[in-house]
Amino acid sequence: MFDMHNQTWSRSEKTIARRAYDDAHDRELSALAEEVRRRANRITEPRHIWALHDFLTRKRKEIDRKYDYRYSQLVLVFALLIRDGWLSEAELTGLAEEKLARIKLLLDMWSTE
Amino acid sequence: MFDMHNQTWSRSEKTIARRAYDDAHDRELSALAEEVRRRANRITEPRHIWALHDFLTRKRKEIDRKYDYRYSQLVLVFALLIRDGWLSEAELTGLAEEKLARIKLLLDMWSTE
Repeated sequence: MFDMHNQTWSRSEKTIARRAYDDAHDRELSALAEEVRRRANRITEPRHIWALHDFLTRKRKEIDRKYDYRYSQLVLVFALLIRDGWLSEAELTGLAEEKLARIKLLLDMWSTE
Repeated sequence: MFDMHNQTWSRSEKTIARRAYDDAHDRELSALAEEVRRRANRITEPRHIWALHDFLTRKRKEIDRKYDYRYSQLVLVFALLIRDGWLSEAELTGLAEEKLARIKLLLDMWSTE
């Protein structure tokens, strides 16, 4: 059995993690910028302005909450990023097997919910 | 001296007020929509997204606070709208002289601040 609480990250794991995290963040924010542009260019009524504001409020909370670069949180963060399509499992190659197994476990749990 | 607390609005004054208020609102919201589009199309970094969100939060509060269609508030509202360029004094032609005088008084106070 793997140790669910092993939070040790080797130097090479940290490098992989940082890159994966930053790349996912860049992708998600680029997609958000594109979506904001799309919505802004479709504003034809005042209520569309406030709908865009509500959308940004929601996204900002969601993104602030999700991107948490504490080593104790990274397994969960990576699982969320994979689930939402901002990261692929392949980009985490090189992380310890037990971390990858915990990520897969979370993904399996969510996929059957 | 005019009566500062006369809040009576005749039927024809109400018609003029409603039109002026709605027109100013339409202009301000159209200008805001244009500004949102301009800012959205200039997003090149994540921080620009959050700056747009902050801008909308500020504008929404400001607009919610300003557009108050209670007859007790309308003189102040119209003065603010003229000050900020969303309404012209000419559009209020037909309101009682004492209301127009109160609006001018507010504008004079602000212009010398």
